[in-house]
Amino acid sequence: MKIVWAGSKHDFEVSDRIARLVASDPVFSKDTRTMMDRKELFKNTLRKVAHAWKRINELRLTEEEAGKLRFYVDQPAYTDLHWGMFVPAIKGQGTEEQQAKWLPLAYKMQIIGCYAQTELGHGSNVQGLETTATFDPKTDEFIVHSPTLTSSKWWPGGLGKVSTHAVVYARLIIDGKEYGVNGFIVQLRSLDDHSPLPGITVGDIGMKFGNGAYNSMDNGVLTFDNVRIPRDQMLMRVGQVTREGKYVQSDVPRQLLYGTMVFVRKTIVSDASIALSRAVTIATRYSAVRRQFGSQNGGPETQVIDYKTQQSRLFPLLASAYAFRFVSEWLSWLYTDVTQRLQANDFSILPEAHACTAGLKSLTTSITADGIEECRKLCGGHGYLCSSGLPELFAVYVPACTYEGDNVVLQLQVARFLMKTVAQLGSGKPLVGTTAYMGRAEHLLQCKSSAEKPEDWLNPDVVLEAFESRAFRMSVACAKNLAKFSIPEEGFSELSADLVEAAVAHCQLIVVSKFIDKLKQDIPGAGVKQQLEILCSIYALHLLHKHAGDFLATGSLTSKQVALANDILRSLYSKLRPNAIALVDAFNYTDHYLGSVLGRYDGSVYSKLYEGAWKDPLNETVVPEGYHEFVRPILKQH
Amino acid sequence: MKIVWAGSKHDFEVSDRIARLVASDPVFSKDTRTMMDRKELFKNTLRKVAHAWKRINELRLTEEEAGKLRFYVDQPAYTDLHWGMFVPAIKGQGTEEQQAKWLPLAYKMQIIGCYAQTELGHGSNVQGLETTATFDPKTDEFIVHSPTLTSSKWWPGGLGKVSTHAVVYARLIIDGKEYGVNGFIVQLRSLDDHSPLPGITVGDIGMKFGNGAYNSMDNGVLTFDNVRIPRDQMLMRVGQVTREGKYVQSDVPRQLLYGTMVFVRKTIVSDASIALSRAVTIATRYSAVRRQFGSQNGGPETQVIDYKTQQSRLFPLLASAYAFRFVSEWLSWLYTDVTQRLQANDFSILPEAHACTAGLKSLTTSITADGIEECRKLCGGHGYLCSSGLPELFAVYVPACTYEGDNVVLQLQVARFLMKTVAQLGSGKPLVGTTAYMGRAEHLLQCKSSAEKPEDWLNPDVVLEAFESRAFRMSVACAKNLAKFSIPEEGFSELSADLVEAAVAHCQLIVVSKFIDKLKQDIPGAGVKQQLEILCSIYALHLLHKHAGDFLATGSLTSKQVALANDILRSLYSKLRPNAIALVDAFNYTDHYLGSVLGRYDGSVYSKLYEGAWKDPLNETVVPEGYHEFVRPILKQH
Ligand SMILES: Cc1cc2nc3c(=O)[nH]c(=O)nc-3n(C[C@H](O)[C@H](O)[C@H](O)COP(=O)(O)OP(=O)(O)OC[C@H]3O[C@@H](n4cnc5c(N)ncnc54)[C@H](O)[C@@H]3O)c2cc1C
Ligand SMILES: Cc1cc2nc3c(=O)[nH]c(=O)nc-3n(C[C@H](O)[C@H](O)[C@H](O)COP(=O)(O)OP(=O)(O)OC[C@H]3O[C@@H](n4cnc5c(N)ncnc54)[C@H](O)[C@@H]3O)c2cc1C
Repeated sequence: MKIVWAGSKHDFEVSDRIARLVASDPVFSKDTRTMMDRKELFKNTLRKVAHAWKRINELRLTEEEAGKLRFYVDQPAYTDLHWGMFVPAIKGQGTEEQQAKWLPLAYKMQIIGCYAQTELGHGSNVQGLETTATFDPKTDEFIVHSPTLTSSKWWPGGLGKVSTHAVVYARLIIDGKEYGVNGFIVQLRSLDDHSPLPGITVGDIGMKFGNGAYNSMDNGVLTFDNVRIPRDQMLMRVGQVTREGKYVQSDVPRQLLYGTMVFVRKTIVSDASIALSRAVTIATRYSAVRRQFGSQNGGPETQVIDYKTQQSRLFPLLASAYAFRFVSEWLSWLYTDVTQRLQANDFSILPEAHACTAGLKSLTTSITADGIEECRKLCGGHGYLCSSGLPELFAVYVPACTYEGDNVVLQLQVARFLMKTVAQLGSGKPLVGTTAYMGRAEHLLQCKSSAEKPEDWLNPDVVLEAFESRAFRMSVACAKNLAKFSIPEEGFSELSADLVEAAVAHCQLIVVSKFIDKLKQDIPGAGVKQQLEILCSIYALHLLHKHAGDFLATGSLTSKQVALANDILRSLYSKLRPNAIALVDAFNYTDHYLGSVLGRYDGSVYSKLYEGAWKDPLNETVVPEGYHEFVRPILKQH
Repeated sequence: MKIVWAGSKHDFEVSDRIARLVASDPVFSKDTRTMMDRKELFKNTLRKVAHAWKRINELRLTEEEAGKLRFYVDQPAYTDLHWGMFVPAIKGQGTEEQQAKWLPLAYKMQIIGCYAQTELGHGSNVQGLETTATFDPKTDEFIVHSPTLTSSKWWPGGLGKVSTHAVVYARLIIDGKEYGVNGFIVQLRSLDDHSPLPGITVGDIGMKFGNGAYNSMDNGVLTFDNVRIPRDQMLMRVGQVTREGKYVQSDVPRQLLYGTMVFVRKTIVSDASIALSRAVTIATRYSAVRRQFGSQNGGPETQVIDYKTQQSRLFPLLASAYAFRFVSEWLSWLYTDVTQRLQANDFSILPEAHACTAGLKSLTTSITADGIEECRKLCGGHGYLCSSGLPELFAVYVPACTYEGDNVVLQLQVARFLMKTVAQLGSGKPLVGTTAYMGRAEHLLQCKSSAEKPEDWLNPDVVLEAFESRAFRMSVACAKNLAKFSIPEEGFSELSADLVEAAVAHCQLIVVSKFIDKLKQDIPGAGVKQQLEILCSIYALHLLHKHAGDFLATGSLTSKQVALANDILRSLYSKLRPNAIALVDAFNYTDHYLGSVLGRYDGSVYSKLYEGAWKDPLNETVVPEGYHEFVRPILKQH
């Protein structure tokens, strides 16, 4: 199972080796992270990044290995944006000359960059950004300016304290005319002494959710007071400004930029599976250690993992971690496919690929965020301690629901795409990729599920048909309701909450179907396939139970069928139980990476909790600071 | 509406006066709380507590006013446990002599106490506690001892650094025989110099979820090495140990102790409504300030509160805050009723009162915890900043799902009670209080809802019948499935996830019905009742939509009826929209109490966010600490 999770033997081996390397290096210790104040934490992060860079160079790690090393160091830092957004932005939006000039500097980290799009007043609506870049033909420069308070750049990671450069998004203005939002490379700080350049005000935006967590990142605020940059620092792959001040669309289609989005979002889906699998590992291991109630004749109490309520909360999350892993594998394939098609000037699948990555980003990050918190609750009181690792994991993870597209805004995009697709049914327009099922419109609107006994729900075809029918009928119902409005936009707005539900149903179908597809592949390892079949059924059937209202309201299933699915689901939990620990061990996380006393591989939870407590700064003295000033006077007042 | 929310004119006036008093006192400032390290935060908390105590005495505040003052100071501290658990434990479990001896000391805070029940190895299962209290007839003392690592007391608030005394729960052992878990008053620290007494090891258990948040509380660890206490420090109201070492049951029934539980849990339900209303205030006000998309001809963009998706996430939470408020009012009445009956030796309603408070505690805290996080997400990126107030509110609130009974364990208790009630139907046993509806068993199993058009769902009787029918049918279905098992306990365990769902349905019915009851009362203020009717309908119908699967699967409603309910729900959101701000202003929270830049009363969000950023410690220097050591070498390596 380890190999299946890792993707390949090679992946497993590299990950395993690098994870151990990181775990054994004291500079990368995470033990006191949640106790540090902001400045300490930040400095410690700079230290780790520098050390990682040193090790990468000393050991001559490959790009793959270097990426894994940064991953296992598990510390949000300015480098995430440098490598993850600044470099890709230049690659995706820069001309070849621009790439030749800037990328080598970035690769060697002779400049450090960030991605400055969001402003105080605008995030989701990129077209509403207020920062301006006005072309000055006299000097052949752009004047970058923040005209209002709300135009202050706000949020970019790495901006606050470290970045020397940024890709800044601003409205291009030439001769008083606007040409939409474009990206510009702007130097922010002196490469000599790191002080902000003239006209630039930059700082950190302050504390964020949680201890440790994302506070190691210097999300920043930035304003421009008429800052001048050379004309060739506008990213000009899709549109250019000439020396004469003419805006010229290049022959590179704008859609190319979507390719990058597909890439970034596929990474987010893969990160979701990782974050969820970490939380599940901790909760599963601890649930096997924790005993509560049910002692018979003075024997040991019941492991809480044996309670059906615990299983019904935990195992679907375990199954989801696997499901998200496989759908992210599939997204990798999709990305390659899209890239090849774009190169061949075939843009036909872009809308579908875009909708599907947007929807999956939204779906997987929402479930993961809630799932981490559920895992924390599954650990009872002890899950509330930082030493459980779960509070920090939650705090560091949740913004994934917001950045790279607010999850609700994204599902509305998916819904728009679905409504378009439904409207075009029967028009002869081919249905591509994840919408292919809509081709069987008539069948899906009429079919009656053949499930008659619990075991029928183990049949992937039965499951798939139910999910297809439910998703399609929900889309069709929305389309019908929309048709009642004379102004379509008004209808879309009025029905948007229902539309989001239809979009979610569609996305769940994608995940279920990709899990089923995975099982059709050749899967090595004794018994591995059987395990995955159980997980796949649990994934699908827990959704069916949770969203029973959809299946029933659309008439896709009868109450009886829903009840049968629930019966088999219970028995699947019992089947999974003996392998639960093995299934989380398959993630192959080191204790360092997990960072959780409750999730320790050796199960020595209580002794480590006890030892750990004494390291809290409050325990440095037996009598606390402030006792004489603030407690004793109360006790002794009379 | 302010009066309705506050409960009475008097309550409103006291709250308003005290809230302003607190807000204007610089010692109670919360501005830098999330930036403080643990020691600073803790010392600052001690300062606030001492100052509050001083003000309470200087101003000669009444008990009611003092309670409100502590409430508005809004800082978890050792006093919460002193007043909230230590004092009530002595009151509830101490004999009259014990109360006469200890309460005056506690009231004057000449001793400070905590409630030490939970151990490293046992929380939910109180009967599994391992600490022992062995009677030594020679010296007329108990020897309190921690026989194992897992028997270490772990979690008690106020224990770690401040408490001088604790009510400790331990297994009573006399002459080698066990007499179950009992409470003992144990002195922990010297009243002279605060050092732990011989045999006592005590400390803080370390950092917990979030910045600021509950880290101001010294949850503690405590072990006993054969610590001796006088015999009269066992709390002996229900059972006594005589000088000769005989255990004697007193004539005070054990059930009396449940009264305290009802009291504590009613407070938790009321706290839920407050925490949720705070989060909703922030998200509602910010949603009216925040604009995104939808600008027409260069005009202002749409306030995000006008998006139906935003409304469908936010307004049910607003309605829930009101619903929880009213159900907690009703619980106060129930508590008085229970107390009077207990005094009259009438224990008949205890099981029902106990199940219903346990269930409502579970329901309201779960929804509130999730609701706070949803409100944070409703604020987009800015909700992730500590200055939004929401991260801390979440972190400080979530343990309410775990303490005073893990929420799942509690619903299992409710389910047990429901199964017993269903089993006794027809036996002639009277159905009391919140189970009265089960008296109409036959009707509820057969009735068909009369809802035919959207407006029918505004009729409280239609709503109530649907909720009763759904809840009852779910209970009956569980009971039927249970009957298939030859060993009832096995059945209960196997079906426990379904049982929890039935319990939740029952609890939701209680909240809905108490909201409807509230509307039957005389409600002063123009238009207030109409507003409440809208809220009540939204509360009920959003649940109906969310749990449509239950209503459909039990045959309580048809798909058509569920769709009609959803139609009217959408129109209710539009009706509520114009009053949304007024409805949150009715909570009458000061900016100090809310502690949120996004939730400011005057709406000046952006300027305050911008100003606030610069106060972060990282902005003390323009070039960050660590630059020369860890960043410059990377930039300059070649
Ligand atoms: C940790 C973190 C790191 C970040 N890093 C970066 C970075 O490196 N660079 C960068 O440029 N930015 C960054 N961001 C900013 C991020 O991209 C934005 O916060 C995100 O795009 C969401 O936008 P918003 O904050 O404006 O939310 P809003 O759009 O203001 O959302 C507020 C509410 O309005 C709703 N809403 C908005 N529009 C609609 C609509 N049309 N219909 C219905 N509902 C709507 C949303 O659902 C949400 O509930 C970061 C943010 C965070 C939290
Ligand atoms: C912030 C905070 C403050 C606290 N303050 C105090 C205090 O002042 N004094 C004090 O004495 N204690 C205190 N506690 C402890 C608290 O009361 C316990 O944490 C709580 O009772 C839960 O018990 P647990 O931690 O043992 O959880 P567990 O019972 O170990 O829960 C772990 C998991 O097992 C499941 N589970 C347990 N039993 C069953 C069952 N029978 N059936 C199905 N599932 C089951 C739970 O649902 C949960 O998912 C505090 C805790 C916290 C977090």
